[in-house]
Amino acid sequence: MAKAHTFGFLGAKALFADAVGDVELAVLVDVEPSLAERTAHLLGFRESSADWRAVVARKDIDLIDIVAPNDLHHPMALAAIAEGKHVLCEKPLALTSAQAGELYQAASAAGIHHMVAFTYRLSPAVQLARNLIAGGELGRILQFHGLYFNDFGCDPNLPLSWRFQAARAGSGTSAGTGPHVIDLARYLVGEVAQVAGMRSTWVAKRPVAKDSRGDYFADAGPAASLGDVDVDDACSFLMRFEGEAMGTIQVSRCAPGRKDYLYVEVNGTEGSIVFNSERPSELQFYSSRDARTASGFRTILIGPMHAGAEAFWHLPGMGIGLAEARILQAREMLVALQSGKAPTPSFYDGWQSTRVVDAVVLSADDRRWTDLAEIDAAKSSVAAR
Amino acid sequence: MAKAHTFGFLGAKALFADAVGDVELAVLVDVEPSLAERTAHLLGFRESSADWRAVVARKDIDLIDIVAPNDLHHPMALAAIAEGKHVLCEKPLALTSAQAGELYQAASAAGIHHMVAFTYRLSPAVQLARNLIAGGELGRILQFHGLYFNDFGCDPNLPLSWRFQAARAGSGTSAGTGPHVIDLARYLVGEVAQVAGMRSTWVAKRPVAKDSRGDYFADAGPAASLGDVDVDDACSFLMRFEGEAMGTIQVSRCAPGRKDYLYVEVNGTEGSIVFNSERPSELQFYSSRDARTASGFRTILIGPMHAGAEAFWHLPGMGIGLAEARILQAREMLVALQSGKAPTPSFYDGWQSTRVVDAVVLSADDRRWTDLAEIDAAKSSVAAR
Amino acid sequence: MAKAHTFGFLGAKALFADAVGDVELAVLVDVEPSLAERTAHLLGFRESSADWRAVVARKDIDLIDIVAPNDLHHPMALAAIAEGKHVLCEKPLALTSAQAGELYQAASAAGIHHMVAFTYRLSPAVQLARNLIAGGELGRILQFHGLYFNDFGCDPNLPLSWRFQAARAGSGTSAGTGPHVIDLARYLVGEVAQVAGMRSTWVAKRPVAKDSRGDYFADAGPAASLGDVDVDDACSFLMRFEGEAMGTIQVSRCAPGRKDYLYVEVNGTEGSIVFNSERPSELQFYSSRDARTASGFRTILIGPMHAGAEAFWHLPGMGIGLAEARILQAREMLVALQSGKAPTPSFYDGWQSTRVVDAVVLSADDRRWTDLAEIDAAKSSVAAR
Amino acid sequence: MAKAHTFGFLGAKALFADAVGDVELAVLVDVEPSLAERTAHLLGFRESSADWRAVVARKDIDLIDIVAPNDLHHPMALAAIAEGKHVLCEKPLALTSAQAGELYQAASAAGIHHMVAFTYRLSPAVQLARNLIAGGELGRILQFHGLYFNDFGCDPNLPLSWRFQAARAGSGTSAGTGPHVIDLARYLVGEVAQVAGMRSTWVAKRPVAKDSRGDYFADAGPAASLGDVDVDDACSFLMRFEGEAMGTIQVSRCAPGRKDYLYVEVNGTEGSIVFNSERPSELQFYSSRDARTASGFRTILIGPMHAGAEAFWHLPGMGIGLAEARILQAREMLVALQSGKAPTPSFYDGWQSTRVVDAVVLSADDRRWTDLAEIDAAKSSVAAR
Repeated sequence: MAKAHTFGFLGAKALFADAVGDVELAVLVDVEPSLAERTAHLLGFRESSADWRAVVARKDIDLIDIVAPNDLHHPMALAAIAEGKHVLCEKPLALTSAQAGELYQAASAAGIHHMVAFTYRLSPAVQLARNLIAGGELGRILQFHGLYFNDFGCDPNLPLSWRFQAARAGSGTSAGTGPHVIDLARYLVGEVAQVAGMRSTWVAKRPVAKDSRGDYFADAGPAASLGDVDVDDACSFLMRFEGEAMGTIQVSRCAPGRKDYLYVEVNGTEGSIVFNSERPSELQFYSSRDARTASGFRTILIGPMHAGAEAFWHLPGMGIGLAEARILQAREMLVALQSGKAPTPSFYDGWQSTRVVDAVVLSADDRRWTDLAEIDAAKSSVAAR
Repeated sequence: MAKAHTFGFLGAKALFADAVGDVELAVLVDVEPSLAERTAHLLGFRESSADWRAVVARKDIDLIDIVAPNDLHHPMALAAIAEGKHVLCEKPLALTSAQAGELYQAASAAGIHHMVAFTYRLSPAVQLARNLIAGGELGRILQFHGLYFNDFGCDPNLPLSWRFQAARAGSGTSAGTGPHVIDLARYLVGEVAQVAGMRSTWVAKRPVAKDSRGDYFADAGPAASLGDVDVDDACSFLMRFEGEAMGTIQVSRCAPGRKDYLYVEVNGTEGSIVFNSERPSELQFYSSRDARTASGFRTILIGPMHAGAEAFWHLPGMGIGLAEARILQAREMLVALQSGKAPTPSFYDGWQSTRVVDAVVLSADDRRWTDLAEIDAAKSSVAAR
Repeated sequence: MAKAHTFGFLGAKALFADAVGDVELAVLVDVEPSLAERTAHLLGFRESSADWRAVVARKDIDLIDIVAPNDLHHPMALAAIAEGKHVLCEKPLALTSAQAGELYQAASAAGIHHMVAFTYRLSPAVQLARNLIAGGELGRILQFHGLYFNDFGCDPNLPLSWRFQAARAGSGTSAGTGPHVIDLARYLVGEVAQVAGMRSTWVAKRPVAKDSRGDYFADAGPAASLGDVDVDDACSFLMRFEGEAMGTIQVSRCAPGRKDYLYVEVNGTEGSIVFNSERPSELQFYSSRDARTASGFRTILIGPMHAGAEAFWHLPGMGIGLAEARILQAREMLVALQSGKAPTPSFYDGWQSTRVVDAVVLSADDRRWTDLAEIDAAKSSVAAR
Repeated sequence: MAKAHTFGFLGAKALFADAVGDVELAVLVDVEPSLAERTAHLLGFRESSADWRAVVARKDIDLIDIVAPNDLHHPMALAAIAEGKHVLCEKPLALTSAQAGELYQAASAAGIHHMVAFTYRLSPAVQLARNLIAGGELGRILQFHGLYFNDFGCDPNLPLSWRFQAARAGSGTSAGTGPHVIDLARYLVGEVAQVAGMRSTWVAKRPVAKDSRGDYFADAGPAASLGDVDVDDACSFLMRFEGEAMGTIQVSRCAPGRKDYLYVEVNGTEGSIVFNSERPSELQFYSSRDARTASGFRTILIGPMHAGAEAFWHLPGMGIGLAEARILQAREMLVALQSGKAPTPSFYDGWQSTRVVDAVVLSADDRRWTDLAEIDAAKSSVAAR
């Protein structure tokens, strides 16, 4: 993920030099000094460090980019804010909505620029979906149907990395990939009012890797003992939005063949859109206003005529995917530093998505519908974005 | 629908003459005598009638095929069973699971052949999915994700036909298209144990057509008054199956661009299948056992090597769709009459799907998880299929 | 193929009874009396015969439907015309354009109704393509790109059936599936003026089956000797149409995974259409007139709003495929008998496509561009359809 | 295109720092000094210049990357080679195969590293196709079917830029996008032996833009006069490969809806692959060795298990597209400078593709099959790659 973010900053520098100004990769931090050093060298950072607290306090650094495991987002972001640093933070913003709300309040109070890495929202295909909806092309929005399916979790030999431990990862897929879909639901439809969810853990024990940092595909080795998984492998929930729309979200890491499959469908009274992250250069769009004999889902290929994609490749069909979205995300943050314009999605969005996750987990645990107002209601009084 | 069923019987006769024996189209019944007569002539029935009670009592008829509005399924089927007739009934089998259970018990007691028109189950692509699952190709089944989306309901000018009235149609899309998806969930995964649902009605009033029979696309005319819709336009629910699998079902008639879109995805520990009724000649299949660098969803084209499709066209890719499935459905029923082999899906399946619908509606009304055991539990003691 | 045609007639009778009148299946003919008898029984014909000359002379028969191997089309059709019978003939109309022209002239002179089984032309998706083109939606037509790919020919163990012998099948895939694509090129773009082709035979010897009738998938058995294949396995050619359009056609029976894949793309100055027979219920349509940010190929699902599909199923997405096209083909012929309206595609179309095949074979043999005027030019003076 | 190449170098530096070493963007050259200066600033080059001859002679530069209009490739590359510089050159390598052969000979003699920007060959999806073929998964290769379709040429208001003038662009689409497809044909199947082609120019006059540099979408303005187009808008040709395979290639800039559509299908005796540049993260693969009831084209999502993609994103489905291919292309060249390993595709490949283009144009002009041996045959004696 450090590589992906660095790629985003360098790409933004290469393609948007006049908008983003000069960018220097200052310090790469990892808990293991040797890995920090090697990665810093590989990615072109000036320095490396194993002491993130020291780094966030440095005066020669403007922006802290947090891509550590989920449990570190809150302390790192809080410390960075306290030092007056601008912060880009990977999702989920925090393990609980209470912590996320605290971050949003602290960032707002400090007047820093804050952004959460809901990268898909920056994708030009999603921007187009939003513009079509905002322009009334879909009529009134009635339904949202979202998925985030992966398949790596099907492998019982995958080691017990931090992603399978609630203390470090939060509730599981619900907290890991769930926020991406929740953010798109909020972005394209509106605020979620009520949820009812269920969760499953199908692989209850996993081998303990010698290297506790265990990545996605590493082999735990033959002599590994088994440890308990206390997060969910899959989570599905029903949603009522504020207003008349309803929706569902399903996230799972046990869907063979779905490699990194974020699927979003929005139906309005007069049209529909479909976005599929595995075909990120396309947006499907149906309009009831087309001639009755010639209507059908259109496969729109994203290109230079679409907002956000103007500065990339000279023809549609040349591909505007996740790589480009990472560059756009970095640009959004860097432009904020240059221009003072607040970046989006902000910690407010990070906090709201975390509130939905908390409500879903509560509803699943209690087997009942849960109103978002139940979750950290006091914090809601903070002025919104 | 009468046309579709008649087509099925004639097709079965044309393609499976030695298995189905001679088939005579005896009497076509409609409440309006002139329409009955005209349709009988068009479709090649010997006679027409406006008195279904008289027809079910005739001694020269073996099989009653019920394609009337939903509220008539129960009285017609009950009368036919009482006369010892074999019965093929459109879904839903009845407006309530209590009535459906009564039909199943009566049919079992009478010893007649009974079948419910869950046509998709007969589709060779679905048969292949079932065979892959039964053969262990997907490993243990973990997830079911089903949709049935249409878009005709988005049009507020569509007249208030019987489909929009609970007294005649049952609960709405939940009772109308829902059972098709529920039947596939039961067929491919297993029995549903618990559900939590929600329902929405977005078009609450519709023009009252002068012709109360109002079809899908008829225009109600300019001077029409408005009447109340008391069924759902959309229904989504979470499911726990018996065992470890979980799933979701979403049905809607307000999804622009989704014309007749029944989508089913099943994920197991080692593979997945996807069926989409708008591409009925295809089954998507992913196997984790394929070489890691060469794995991907396969688009299997249904052809003569697949169970159920042997007798149709000589090459895959020539199309095995809903037309063919209707023929296979008719064959299943006609073979039962010839051979005595009980047809499937039976009234038992019709009843079970109705129990799930009732549980979903109850859960939506009460905003709580509902156990299937709450629904008509006493009847469950009837010996299963 | 007898089954497919019979299905068409029965389906037309079932769905279009008032337009097609009464239809009786009179006599099924096969060179083997026992097979003729069995098939007649299976398909519901009144009688069977092994003597086609006797059958075409019978006074109680109106229509001769020819589905015999290619070399028999000419003598059978000629004899039927001589007896004043109406004729529906499978493609190719004859083994040579000279013979095909003779048939067209004889049929015209006799005043009978004549039709060649270019079934795809009757498909509502192709009808829609034609209507969009005729309505100017694509602007001026510039390009045609057509394929007909199968894969059964890759199997070297497939027996040496008549399809692999030039004396019975004509030139090979060029004569077998080629005419389907050629007919669509003519129907959607216009007459072909010049061609340049190439042909390949990759499986030069095949096992001689004990049963010389060898079907597609039959096994020749272990002791089979090998015989020479003298037809092409694949043929590709360039085309200049009359006017400014150009095109290519590729046919092959050695394209693994392409089961029955007829693909047609037409590009005009302002739009494009794509038809793929493996997804026959869909037409892809692109219009340059759509908003620049919202343009893309539309997947139009064929349904009751499309010409030819009105009488089938009540919603788009329920599938209008080859089965339905066969019914429409039978209807076209039967309506001609009832109403006197000449059916289309006629023997004229059958003849023209054969002229293109002959020109392609000549051009491939001589390795040079060939003008259609070289082929049977004298016959072209016959007044066109 | 300068942007795309610069992005590639920066991306290679960001992701493959240890393999590619330090990379400095030295001098950006453009014929207009002010544009050169602005672009250099935007893209992060140290300097700018309007005098390419001076730049290629500088001693502090190792690599010359040529992205100028086609007619400048030959003089620029020749001068760079003469100065002992390594050269990466956009396709086509030169306007004629004679010039291209001269470049290959000069580069070979000089011992420099030379590479032509057939970017798609570097794409991991194409690498996978090559590996499947090399590994025998497709059996013997029989057919190649390639397209490169765009649609910008349909617009008659597009200005008469250098792309529409033979003196600067070569023969047209045949020379512009044709070489990309030809290179994939050579890479995946083998050398081309004979061709027969045809060419069309549908928009024969275009407005002369005030700015002669006219880009793809610029408006020529109202008062523009019209100038002659002397290149082809479309070109199709038949190919015989050395050995038994045959193929077709079609290129066009008048195919509405095809934005940047490079489509390649290869059929062997036991399998097929399909690559579509508009879905660059996918490879379609069919194997006849799959179980007969479960075979179908597989959609393989490119990810870290595939050669070339290891260093990018951590899951398949995250997208490996043209952006990534450009980085891999830059890496290939930079690694050559570091390690001495010759990069591929080389000027030899650039030359060979140009020979095919020349043969196609000759065959189209003379309306006859043309043997590749006719084209610059003397130069073929140069030892191959």
